[in-house]
This record gives sequence, C-alpha cells and structure tokens, in this order.
Amino acid sequence: MTSPTLTLAQELIRRNSITPEDAGCQQYIAERLAKIGFANEHMPHKEVLNLWSRFGTSGPVLVFAGHTDVVPTGPAERWQHPPFAAEVHDGILYGRGAADMKGSVAAFIVAVENFLKKHPNPKGSIALLLTSDEEGPAVEGTVRVVEALQARNEVIDYCIVGEPTCEKTVGDTIKNGRRGSLSGTLVVQGIQGHIAYPHLADNPVHRLAPALTELAATEWDQGNEFFPPTSWQVSNIRGGTGATNVIPGTVEVLFNFRFSTASTEEGLKARVHEILDRHGLKYQLQWELSGEPYLTGSGALVDALREVIRGTCGMTPELSTSGGTSDGRFIAKHCPEVVEFGPLNATIHKIDEHVPVNDLEILCKVYEMVLEKLVA
Amino acid sequence: MTSPTLTLAQELIRRNSITPEDAGCQQYIAERLAKIGFANEHMPHKEVLNLWSRFGTSGPVLVFAGHTDVVPTGPAERWQHPPFAAEVHDGILYGRGAADMKGSVAAFIVAVENFLKKHPNPKGSIALLLTSDEEGPAVEGTVRVVEALQARNEVIDYCIVGEPTCEKTVGDTIKNGRRGSLSGTLVVQGIQGHIAYPHLADNPVHRLAPALTELAATEWDQGNEFFPPTSWQVSNIRGGTGATNVIPGTVEVLFNFRFSTASTEEGLKARVHEILDRHGLKYQLQWELSGEPYLTGSGALVDALREVIRGTCGMTPELSTSGGTSDGRFIAKHCPEVVEFGPLNATIHKIDEHVPVNDLEILCKVYEMVLEKLVA
Ligand SMILES: [Zn+2]
Ligand SMILES: [Zn+2]
Repeated sequence: MTSPTLTLAQELIRRNSITPEDAGCQQYIAERLAKIGFANEHMPHKEVLNLWSRFGTSGPVLVFAGHTDVVPTGPAERWQHPPFAAEVHDGILYGRGAADMKGSVAAFIVAVENFLKKHPNPKGSIALLLTSDEEGPAVEGTVRVVEALQARNEVIDYCIVGEPTCEKTVGDTIKNGRRGSLSGTLVVQGIQGHIAYPHLADNPVHRLAPALTELAATEWDQGNEFFPPTSWQVSNIRGGTGATNVIPGTVEVLFNFRFSTASTEEGLKARVHEILDRHGLKYQLQWELSGEPYLTGSGALVDALREVIRGTCGMTPELSTSGGTSDGRFIAKHCPEVVEFGPLNATIHKIDEHVPVNDLEILCKVYEMVLEKLVA
Repeated sequence: MTSPTLTLAQELIRRNSITPEDAGCQQYIAERLAKIGFANEHMPHKEVLNLWSRFGTSGPVLVFAGHTDVVPTGPAERWQHPPFAAEVHDGILYGRGAADMKGSVAAFIVAVENFLKKHPNPKGSIALLLTSDEEGPAVEGTVRVVEALQARNEVIDYCIVGEPTCEKTVGDTIKNGRRGSLSGTLVVQGIQGHIAYPHLADNPVHRLAPALTELAATEWDQGNEFFPPTSWQVSNIRGGTGATNVIPGTVEVLFNFRFSTASTEEGLKARVHEILDRHGLKYQLQWELSGEPYLTGSGALVDALREVIRGTCGMTPELSTSGGTSDGRFIAKHCPEVVEFGPLNATIHKIDEHVPVNDLEILCKVYEMVLEKLVA
C-alpha cells in the first residue's frame, strides 16, 4: 500500500520543520515542481522561507496555498508512533503535520503532476504558495508573498488553502471564510492602598466588575448567513501584588473578539469604549487586529469544489467560517475567491496526529478535478 | 537634652531587631526590671522570644504590652538618618522602631520605674508582655504568652498596648478595639478551551463578573457606635495561562473582610456563599480568620486613660477602632479591658521613621499616671 501522495507526505513529515523551520521541504518541492515546468521564486524573509512556484502565464490563475512548518510535538515519548517517523499502521499515517498540513501539501502537488500529465497545455495557470511561518507569528510568511504579488500586479483568481477543514468525514466541510480576530489589553486604574484603609484606596477590581459583567453579557451581533455571532472572551485577568493586605493599583484584562462580517473592527472598538466610559473607568486600552474577517460567497471556485466533492465523496460539504484564523485572510486581500479544504482536523496540534491514507488519495483526486474544472 | 526615656529608646533602637529578631532587647529589659523587683519569665517559641515580667502578686493586674521587633528598613541609603543610629535632630528621634514601638516600650518601662519609686508597695500588680513576633506572622508571640497565662489561670485586668495610635498630635486617639480580619481564597471553575470555540468552553471570568459586582456593592453592615462599616476588598485576581488564545479554566480571587462587631465571621461567610451560589458558580472557597474583632467599651481603664490624657495633653482622645490588626486581639481573649495608646503613627513602617522626643516624655507621664489611678 503506497502511492505518490503517501510517499511525498512521508518525505515531508520526516523533515523536522517545527515553525519557523522548513527543514528543506520547500527546496525539495521546488525541485520536484521544476521538473514539470514550474518557475520557482524563493522569497525568504528573516528566518522564514516562502516559495512562490508557478506554471503558465495566462489566466485564470489557481493557487494552492499551504505551509511546510508544523507545531511542536509536545512530549515525544507520549507519542505511540514517533512524530517524525511517518509510520503507517492499519491505513493511518502518523506524524506531526500529517493532517496540518503536509498531507494536503503532498496531495495538491501530486494532483498538479497528474493534471499536467493529462493537460500539458492548460488554458490557465497553476501556482503554489508555501510558507514556513503559518504556525508562528505569520508576519514574514504568506502576507509577504501576497505583498510581492500585489506590488507587481500579478493577479490570482482562485485559491485553495489546504488547511484541515473536515470534522468527521473527509469532504464534510469547506471553509469559505474566517472570522476576524481583534484583541485588547485593558488596564483599569485604581489607587493602591492598605486593605485596612479602603477609603484611602480605589479598588480597580471592584470598578471593573460591573463593566466586565456588561461586556460578557453583550450581544455584539447575531452573525449572518455565513458567520456565527461575534464572540467576546477574556483570556487573562491579573490584579494585585500577591500581598493579601494590599488593594491593587491596577487590574489588567486581555480579551479577544472573534468577529463576523456583521460587525466591523471600528464598530466593536467604539462599543467597548462606550461601555468602559459609561461605567466611569479610568483605563488604558491597546488594540491589536490580528486578523480581518474574510468571506468568499458563491462563485466559480466554491461551486466547482462543492460539485467535485459531491461526486468524489458522496456528500455535499457544509460551508463553514468557524475556527481560528488562517493564512486565507491574507490571500483574500488579493484574491476574490479563497476557500479552504483539507483533511480531518480532529488530531491537529495533538499527540499522535494522524490522517487516513485513503483521505489523502481523496484529497488528491478532489484537487485534480477542481483543476480540470477551472484551468483545463 | 536627654532623659531616661530617650536614652532607653535609643538603647533599644540601636539593637537591629528586624522581626523575628530581638537582638538582646528583652534580655536588656529583663535585667533592668529585675533590679526593681520584677520576676522575669522568658517564653521562647521557635525563633520568637517572649518576655512575661511581673511585679506583685495581688490584683488588679495592669499589663503593658508591646513588641521588640521592627519591620525591615527598606533601602537604608534612602534614610536621611541611619535606621539603627537613633540620632536626635531638632528634638526628633529617628530610627526604625522609634514610633513602632521601641519609643513607647521605653516610655512604659521608665513610667513603671518612676511609679515604683513613689509607690514601692502598690495595691495591685504590674506586668510587661513583650514579643519579638508582632510584625511577623504573630503565631509564636503574644498568643503563646496569653495561652500560658490562661492555662495557669493567671488573671489580668487591664492591658495597655503601646502601639502608635495617634494621628496628628500625641493624645488625640486611643484604640479601644480593632476590626476583625477574615480572608477568602476563591477559585471559580470554568472549562478551558480555545478562544475561537467559546461554545466548547465556559469562561470562569465571565461567570465570576456578576457575582463580583454584587460582592463589591454589598453593604455588609452599617458599623456601630465604635466601628466603621465592614469592608470587603479584593486583593488579588488571577486567571489565564498568559496565552491570549485560551479561555482560562479557572479564576482565583483573594479577598479580605475587615469586619466590625456588627457582623460575625459565620454571618459574613454565609452571605458570601449565598451570593456565589445564587449566581450558579462552581467554586472552591477557603476561609482564614486572621483576627477576630475585639472591643473594650467604657470601663475603668478607658475612663482612667481618657482622664489622664485630658489632663496631660489638654485634649479628649477619640476612641477609634480603625486600622490594621494588633496583638490586642489576642490579649482581649483573656483580659476584659484592652486599649492601645502610643505615639504618632504617621511614619511607621516608612523611611526615616521618627518620633518627637517630647512625645515620649508625654507618653511616659500618661502611663505613670494611669498606674497611679488603677494600681497605686
Ligand atoms: Zn495549518
Ligand atoms: Zn507595632
């Protein structure tokens, strides 16, 4: 039981490329793509490696996007199958990156090879966008490649990101967008003092409590056709010196919005400030937009992908925008149609990450047939 | 400009007795009291030194209580006058412990000496209770001496604690009680999860907020004739792993009641639990009673002290129960009348702690005249 997709996935998994390392993955892929006529452009930024590899010059341009880096293994001794051994047991491929996302990278490379064997002169172009910085800060990766394409007006029409999107069965879920992520660091000021003299102090934890209650209870929006409602969550709260007889002078709250396209960054900021101001808090608040939301409605790419999945997997995939951010948000700034489709996400970032070998074959087939539909 | 009180205060300040050290203070005092007929009983417990020194066997028994330990100096180079030099400048005695409370210890020792010169055979007894553990955990100090007295049924009738009680002018304030101190460590349980999937988590900070709001807004009591209202304050709040994409699994809140005799320990506990339960929180709550409240109403000691202060200082002292806890709470369990009276508290625990030399003379006079009134 072996196949080009499995063999390539194993080749990639055996390279220990914990973010931002690439461990030779991109070089290996570039050489392989060069053999079938791709033009490789390496775009390293700081410690991050990026690869833009393109076949053809005409439109439309379909891009497969992904990453060669993986998250750390955690305690390797807790893995039943060593994280970088890429062992197959009972039809399951084990290893860090098997599902996220060396498996799908292998699948789309083999899909491209298969497609070009049948269509040596397609009407459109095919490109791969790979980075070693998706699991890290994502600052020197995909976003830099997109900037370079924008700067030289290199158009891309369709993009399939190979992130693991499926929940229970391969084919059950496409992500056609992602929520935005907006974080705040709030410091509420009080007046420090001895706990025996509360009238000389001003407890910022007490000041904060009613505002926090209101923020936690607020309905920010109701979501829309594609997005669940915007959520607001505190990730960290810290106040006090550790001493039990001192009223703290400040309390710090870190919070995060995951927001739908039914809200805007500016609108959410304004509403938070309104609540804090109305409660009379003295505070500093620093905002960080770590991801704008994106959405790809119906269109040629979503339609083609759904139709191919229906035929190949025997089910109609659900369109979803749930989950964390992905590099899709960067590509969406330069590409009208971005969707994410890849293997099951149940074991990603976990001990004994794995993927059924057959699912990789299905993915390879789906990717190839989308090429048939859009650029043949 | 020198006097027995000043000289003794300097002798004590020059011994570096940062808690729980005594640095020979109690030995020095014991020898000095032995010369005028006191029977010394040293009661060391672990690293803490305690002295019970008594003159006479009949009643009533008046006790002067205090401590020979001092708090740390902080950065010694920031002191204008070295903390253990006991320098006098312009009538002010500087040094760690000058006000808290080697000055008043010196004053009551000289007061006893002066009194016994005039009344070699008083009708009652005089005792001193000294510890080197008032500024520390206060576990092996005064409480141990009181236990020993209780165990052998040694009665004490009146106790003057020499803690610095005055605010603006020596004589302006007597403390005739102290609030209780009841602390809680509350851990609210939630369910940890990724911030992108809030429906799979349960944010304990959000759960806590409404209960915290209610706790902070609650009127626990209105105080009474002698006590300000009970106060509830959060000293520390901690939730979150530091990671900004994780909803915390728990949040911890440390809080403290300073409570009047209008409330009880059990009543306050019950009300906190009622609020937490009504808000549906899952929590653990550990209580620690670090000091029961005590109150000495009117009586022979308060009356005598007020009258003497009125005559000596030309003002009627206010009765107060504000401020932190003191060892008075331990003595009050065994003594019906406990009051605290000592110098200005403005500089205690601070850089350049000091006391006017003349205030020590006034204290010495007041202590001696109270002896006149109660045990002559
Ligand atoms: Zn990924
Ligand atoms: Zn003291």
